[in-house]
Order: sequence, then C-alpha cells, then structure tokens
Amino acid sequence: MSRIVAVYRVRAAAKDIEARAKAIAVEQSVEMPLEAVVHPHVMSDIVGRVEAISEAGDGVFEVRVGLAAATMGPEAGQVMNMVFGNTSMHDDVTLEDVEFPPGFLGAFGGPRHGIEGLRALCGAGSRALTCTALKPQGQSVADLAALAGRMAEGGLDYIKDDHGIADQTYSPYAKRVPAIARAVEAVRASTGVRTQYVPSVTGDLDQMRAQIRLAREEGVKAVMIPPMVVGMPSFHAAVRAAPEMAFFGHPSFTGGARVAPPLMFGKLFRIFGADASIFVNHGGRFAWPPALCARVAAAARAPLDGLKAVVPVPAGGMTPERTPEMLDFYGRDCMLLIGGALLMARTRLAAASAEFARLVRDHVYR
Amino acid sequence: MSRIVAVYRVRAAAKDIEARAKAIAVEQSVEMPLEAVVHPHVMSDIVGRVEAISEAGDGVFEVRVGLAAATMGPEAGQVMNMVFGNTSMHDDVTLEDVEFPPGFLGAFGGPRHGIEGLRALCGAGSRALTCTALKPQGQSVADLAALAGRMAEGGLDYIKDDHGIADQTYSPYAKRVPAIARAVEAVRASTGVRTQYVPSVTGDLDQMRAQIRLAREEGVKAVMIPPMVVGMPSFHAAVRAAPEMAFFGHPSFTGGARVAPPLMFGKLFRIFGADASIFVNHGGRFAWPPALCARVAAAARAPLDGLKAVVPVPAGGMTPERTPEMLDFYGRDCMLLIGGALLMARTRLAAASAEFARLVRDHVYR
Repeated sequence: MSRIVAVYRVRAAAKDIEARAKAIAVEQSVEMPLEAVVHPHVMSDIVGRVEAISEAGDGVFEVRVGLAAATMGPEAGQVMNMVFGNTSMHDDVTLEDVEFPPGFLGAFGGPRHGIEGLRALCGAGSRALTCTALKPQGQSVADLAALAGRMAEGGLDYIKDDHGIADQTYSPYAKRVPAIARAVEAVRASTGVRTQYVPSVTGDLDQMRAQIRLAREEGVKAVMIPPMVVGMPSFHAAVRAAPEMAFFGHPSFTGGARVAPPLMFGKLFRIFGADASIFVNHGGRFAWPPALCARVAAAARAPLDGLKAVVPVPAGGMTPERTPEMLDFYGRDCMLLIGGALLMARTRLAAASAEFARLVRDHVYR
Repeated sequence: MSRIVAVYRVRAAAKDIEARAKAIAVEQSVEMPLEAVVHPHVMSDIVGRVEAISEAGDGVFEVRVGLAAATMGPEAGQVMNMVFGNTSMHDDVTLEDVEFPPGFLGAFGGPRHGIEGLRALCGAGSRALTCTALKPQGQSVADLAALAGRMAEGGLDYIKDDHGIADQTYSPYAKRVPAIARAVEAVRASTGVRTQYVPSVTGDLDQMRAQIRLAREEGVKAVMIPPMVVGMPSFHAAVRAAPEMAFFGHPSFTGGARVAPPLMFGKLFRIFGADASIFVNHGGRFAWPPALCARVAAAARAPLDGLKAVVPVPAGGMTPERTPEMLDFYGRDCMLLIGGALLMARTRLAAASAEFARLVRDHVYR
C-alpha cells in the first residue's frame, strides 16, 4: 500500500520519544487503541507506521511517519486533516515536511502558470519580477484607483491589493476591482507598461468564484487568496474553477512555526495551485532567519512530482534599498514585493515605483 | 466608529512591549508605515488602536487592540484575517480573545439548535448528552454500518464518524452514509432508542453541500465538520445553506495554543454556527490543564450577543469510568464523547455503550 511520509519535530525526552512517535502514528490514522482494531488489513494497511526516529538536536527529535495514501486521496482538506489534524493540538510537535509517493500529486495539478506564466503576463523576459501592494484599506475606490495608476506608471509588474482589503462598505469589491483594473489598463494603454493588477479575493467558495468571475470580466489575469483563511479545500476549488487565472497565495493566518514554512509556502500552497507564494523575508517585520527564507525558496523550486515551481515572493517590511541584496539572495526566479516603503514616497510614488522596477531590471548578479 | 477588541498575549521585554503593541495594531489594520497614511479618516477610523497593556506574568503581556469593525463586516474569513492574519506568524504572540461590539454577531447567526435542539433530537430531557465515534477508518461500509448498529443498541445519543473518515475508496461517502443511517434507523425502529448518526463532512464548499444534501435525504439530522480544515468562511456557508441541520465542530488542525482554546472552541466555532464543539479534555491524550477545559466550557455557554450557547463536547482519550467525574466537572449542559474506549469492549460493544448511556442517565450530581 502506498504511503505518504509526514515528518514531525517532537520535543521530548529520549526515553519517551519512541512512545510519542507511535502515539502520533496512531493519532494520525485510526485514532483508537490498537488492541481494539479487529481487522488485520486495517492493522497492516491503514494504521500509521513509524518509519524512523532521529535526533535533531536541542531535545528535539525528527519522527517520520508513514500514513496510508488511501486515507487521503486527492482532496486538500483530507491531506491537511491526516497529516496534522489532531496532532496540531500538541504544543511540542511541529509538522516539518510531507513526502508524497510519485504520481500522487498530479491529481491536484499544482501551479497552472508558474514563473514562466507570470513573466509572460507582463513581458518580463527572464528577470526577477516586481510587485507592490495597494494600501491602506479605508480609502475610497477613487483614491485606490488613483494610487494604482501612479504605481503602474512606475512600470512595476504586479500591483496587488493589501490582504486586508476585502469587500468593505468603503470600497466594495464590485466597484473597486473594475475601477482599479481600468486605471491600470489606462496606464498600460498610454505608456506601454505591462503592469497587472492582482485583486485580493476572500470569503467562502461561492463568494470567491463570483469575485474571480468579476475580475476576469475586467481583464484581470491574476488574483490573490490567503489559503489558510479560506481553507485549503476551497482555495484548491477556486483554482480548479479558474485555470486561466494566476493565483498568488497570501500567508495570512498561517500561524508561525507550527507548520514549517518551507512546507507551507514551498509545497502545500504550491500543490493546491498557487503560482506565486508570498512569505516573510528576513530583516523585515518578522523574525525569520535568512537560512529559513532560503529553504522556503528552495522548496518552492524543488522538483515535486512534475508540478511547476511556485514563484517565491519574499515580503514583509522590505525596502527598495534592499533590492540588490535580495536579488543576489533569491536569484532570478522570484518576485520582490515592496509595499509600505514605496508609499512612503507619497507624491513621488510613481518615481519610487519606477526606481524599484529599474533596480530589478538593471541588476547585475554577483 | 465601532471597534472590535482583539486580545493578544505577547512574550516581550517590558521595555519593548509598547512598541510591539503598536506594531501589532498597525499590522492588523493598515499594515504600512503610519507616516505614509495620507487620509485623516484612515488614521482616526481604520488604523488599529492599542487600548490597554497589562502584565500577565512570566514575561508575558496582555495587549488589547481596537480594530475597526468596518474592516471586517459579517464575513468569517475577514474576521480571522483581521484579528490574527499576519500576527499569527509571530511565534511569541497568541490570540487570547476577541470582543465584539453589541449587535455585530447577529449577522453570523451562531448555533441554530444549541443544547435544547440537540437534546430534543434524541429525547434527552435535561440531562447531559452522550456520543461515541465510529472507528477505525479502513473498514468496509458493511462493517461500519454493523458497528454503528451495535453502538445504537446501547442507546447512546449521538454516533459520529471518526474525523479521519471522509470519502475514501474503501468506504465512499455516498454508500457509507446511507448504510450507516439505515442501520441506526433499524435499531431506532426496533428498540425505541433515539440515537442519531452524525456523518463527518469535509472538502470544499460544493462537496460539503452535496454531502449534507445526501445525508438529509437519508433522514440524518446532524453532521460534523472540522472548521479549520475546511476554512471558517466555507464552514459558515455550509451552516447557512442547511439551517435545519445541527453542526458539530471538530478540532482538527486548530493548531494548539496559537489561538486560545476558549476563543476557538467556545466563541469562534460558535459564532460561525457550530451547535456542538468538540475539544480535548484534561487527563486524556492531550496535555490541557483542567482549568483551561473549564474555561472552554464557560466560554461555550457565556452570553454572547444573543447567540445560542454551543454544547461543549470534551473528548480525546476518555473512558466510561471517568463519566461521573466528567459530569460533575462539566454539569448537565454538555455532551460526553467516548470513542476508542468503547471499542475496546469489542464483542461487548452494545453492552459497553449501554453502560455508558446508563452512567450519564443515572448520574447524581454532587
């Protein structure tokens, strides 16, 4: 029987780790005393199996548990449920990685567009991509559209909504998205830039599909969704319902280190269809070490059962001054996202956007 | 402007806490440098406001942040996004509570049935309710149906699917749910027990609605959903689409202490429509202290803007022997859930179920 390997990091005393590992294997499969399992095929094929235990240092052990692929099938929610469902409630366990057997992930489809699709959308050749964020929420539709226009004048590749912008009374989705899409289109038509607007899409699956439909009618080619806010199953359903659209994953509500970031942003978001995956870069507002960020980017691009790579999008308090360093760190196959620091330029926003675009375009890699 | 108060616990040095609190208030509202906010009404009405900071002991501070209700509106995902979205990525911050202004929660509706509805469904008068779980997954439809029949013979109130049971090839939903519902109905018809079957429903919103529809056609009156696996917005949409159905919330993927359990199980699950909320009891497989479990139960029943209470369902490695102690701890307005320990009785399952039902029925509260 085909097995998926869930890799956990468990803080435990050496004398306890074997029992803890077995308990996790049971919890994530049959969730009952094994003495009460009466069917031999359930014992052999369904009950989770501890494949390996190794020391990871500092009182932490890495535990590899084989879980029957048959308990999941190609359904996003059931994958999350079986690999970390109840065990997520143990404070001393994190989910470090999940390894899938060959051929299992094809049914999910992964990114439909990936880096080549995202580059083609804005004529970016083979360089790194640029992105900024429309902020703050609370502004009127007209103000947001004017702001987007000035950002587009700077020639950035993508302008995404701040993830706080949803369907609020002060800027309802049905008015905001057409106004911003048209403002960006006007700049495209008059200047030749290829900037794309990326609306933030949220809510239940019906609401997301309606929002994506409206965006498509306005010529929008990409949207952003926070998969952990809307739930992986409905995120994946939204992707399947709009394969022509590119999807940006937003890290809202991903909950820190309980699921290891390389797994969350480089693998799970990707499996369920994100083309670009926003995460937090080192040296910004979040305390992730550079090595962890490098591992996220590496996971995003690593071979994964034939799925396209997802574009790593480091963000979270970045500044234009850091552009060269970030490009040397992440290479060409990435998208840099700078939001608030561009808005600091206020009346010089278009010029600041253009300067950021130029820094990426002209960068000579070390 | 109406404010929602998010209460965080932040591990920080005393000299840093004021700056940390301000940073959280900005992160959860406009997420940009305040120097770049040009609209006065955004500064006054939209930017998050630190309402209070107090010491909570052990180097932890409690920070109360007022967030504009206008940024959320009555949408489940946007509530999660604004109260804990990006801040969930800080390892040293937990979300302790959320306080909503009067009248804000009516639009969500909360539990449609609550304890009275769940008691009426199985003729339980005013006593505590009983529940068990069909396990293990991996069994055939016929075996699961036979198991459910024997549990029903014991006269338990609710028999829920194990949360690992989904739509697997070895027991597909469309065959499993009718077979189990009919097995339980046969026992009801022949013995007069009032046992209700509670299928586990998962997947994206379309899949959940289809599963609920099929269950309803089989006379099923209650279903179980893991809100954090399917996403709060689609959980809430499933509730709205089937108001005649009672909903059990399952704690899978709730992720431990990053969102305080009284908030997650007593408030959030409830606001978005759970009638019964399964959480982990002390002394079982999860290391929650009794005081925390008591706080979950208290939150589940506390007045909340006119919403019905959600029934607290302590579980996770419970045994029939603990029934009297649990009833004295949780009182009458609860449901006791014992799964694996009943299955340990194997061929005596019906008798063990009946004994558990009798212990609850005959309990004399201290």
